[in-house]
Amino acid sequence: MPIDPVLHHVEAVLFDTFGTVVDWRRGVADAVAQFAVRHGIDLDAQAFALRWRSLYQPSMEPVRSGAREFVSLDVLHAENLRVVLAENGIDPGTVDPTELTWLNTAWHRLPPWPDSVAGLTALRDRAMIGPLSNGNLALLARMAKHSGLPWDVVIGSDVIRAYKPQPEAYQRAVALLGLEPDQVMLAAAHNDDLAAAAAVGLRTGFVARPTEYGPDQARDRSVTGDWDIVADDIVDLAAQFDRGRWTVG
Amino acid sequence: MPIDPVLHHVEAVLFDTFGTVVDWRRGVADAVAQFAVRHGIDLDAQAFALRWRSLYQPSMEPVRSGAREFVSLDVLHAENLRVVLAENGIDPGTVDPTELTWLNTAWHRLPPWPDSVAGLTALRDRAMIGPLSNGNLALLARMAKHSGLPWDVVIGSDVIRAYKPQPEAYQRAVALLGLEPDQVMLAAAHNDDLAAAAAVGLRTGFVARPTEYGPDQARDRSVTGDWDIVADDIVDLAAQFDRGRWTVG
Repeated sequence: MPIDPVLHHVEAVLFDTFGTVVDWRRGVADAVAQFAVRHGIDLDAQAFALRWRSLYQPSMEPVRSGAREFVSLDVLHAENLRVVLAENGIDPGTVDPTELTWLNTAWHRLPPWPDSVAGLTALRDRAMIGPLSNGNLALLARMAKHSGLPWDVVIGSDVIRAYKPQPEAYQRAVALLGLEPDQVMLAAAHNDDLAAAAAVGLRTGFVARPTEYGPDQARDRSVTGDWDIVADDIVDLAAQFDRGRWTVG
Repeated sequence: MPIDPVLHHVEAVLFDTFGTVVDWRRGVADAVAQFAVRHGIDLDAQAFALRWRSLYQPSMEPVRSGAREFVSLDVLHAENLRVVLAENGIDPGTVDPTELTWLNTAWHRLPPWPDSVAGLTALRDRAMIGPLSNGNLALLARMAKHSGLPWDVVIGSDVIRAYKPQPEAYQRAVALLGLEPDQVMLAAAHNDDLAAAAAVGLRTGFVARPTEYGPDQARDRSVTGDWDIVADDIVDLAAQFDRGRWTVG
């Protein structure tokens, strides 16, 4: 088997983070459940997490369109948290600010999927690895520290000052690494993210996360594009990358 | 012994890199010596390295003053390399561009001092660690990968778009980490770097590197300011940080 001419040029693999590397639904629901117990509130922690996440994409839209100046994801998460608290009958103005910050930074403490750390550790021997996420640098750096994600480099959306799927989000990350687009692979559990990366020349790796949104997830259960790697998880992605990059025939 | 009230607040320790963490003189001289052998040139590799480094500070001055738009350190290193090659009777236009790039990226492959990896690995259990260097992100990320520097986060000067000792170089790094200045310590072998960091509120750790410039080094052989930690090397810095941060009386 010859060296794969596509993978052979890839020097860096950058990962979508929320959903692809970490299980935001479990991490956020756990924090919400703890918050509810401490405050003696009756909350559906799973529903709260899904609702909070549902405000994520719409809240970035004014920034993407230029209607709003860039603000970090920590700020958007905090605004969205206030909305969801209010929807659940909790006036955020009555909550201790330290508690609000603790809950908002649940996104800094998300647990990895069971395969993530092993897969990233294996891949790290073959390529430079880092997140390519809409998270800000402080969020991503704390998450890495908390969950043991062995990134070589952490580029936050506040460094890039653009939110995926804006083309600049991918292009500026590639430029900061001193690489060409075809030397960088985006790994993601989301077809739309991979399509946006491919449109500006990056290589693509799909990582299946069929329960990211829960057992009845409809989206991203299969691939909708011709991605360079299609993997069951990050361990599988690392193994396929290794074979394609180094095997000689 | 009580918890040290200064160190107790420090969440992140950022390191000057050239000279403090890595031995640029040895790394650059080794690359120059290899280059000379390959091209059949007679060169004093040590003198070449020192001369190349001597153009480093002056070349950043027009960027600091605003006379020149920000360009990355890779660009400045390449310009300065052409000067030193010409001074040594080598027309850079006659050198294979791949060889020039290889030589210029000697700064991406600098060896750590003997204590650096062990010290950073120990400190990493107590604080977030990263470089705070005039190097660009690609340079710092490759150096970390090459030399096994276990950074949690890599913020390049091209992310900050300012060169130390400009105050913005320290302030923007602190802001990207989501911290206050007194939650961040700069560790450096250079008193002037520490003075500039202290002037904008950062904590300071001196790391002695008395042979950075060679056995007859005059500068930075002792401290010229009231730094929070004064250490023999990075292992000692980590040990002092650990004692100050965690010991209870």
